[in-house]
Amino acid sequence: MARLPVFSMEKLQKKAGAKRVSESAKEELQKTLEKEIEQKTKKAMLFAKHAGRKTIKKEDVFLTND
Amino acid sequence: MARLPVFSMEKLQKKAGAKRVSESAKEELQKTLEKEIEQKTKKAMLFAKHAGRKTIKKEDVFLTND
Repeated sequence: MARLPVFSMEKLQKKAGAKRVSESAKEELQKTLEKEIEQKTKKAMLFAKHAGRKTIKKEDVFLTND
Repeated sequence: MARLPVFSMEKLQKKAGAKRVSESAKEELQKTLEKEIEQKTKKAMLFAKHAGRKTIKKEDVFLTND
């Protein structure tokens, strides 16, 4: 099953300035972002379809930011 | 420099039902999520500090969802 790597969460949290992050805080972020990818992808699929395409392009993902 | 893996973007987009995703659409999602990790982590650091902790815990990340 596809997941976001927990070590990427930690690295990016540290990059953002965090000094100490609990394991469950990394997992919470992972879970939140995975849900968001699902929501954004479903929206992007609609935008692609609306534009007469089967391929999701950059502009479809970009539109999901609004 | 820490990044989210592009292949994770693709895997999770496929898992959400996408059939075809352009390379730049994966990179756009990657960029969006990395920005979000930064914003969420900075908020979570404030919440941890507010609770008198130096360690970011699950509940700090959870609060950033509101």
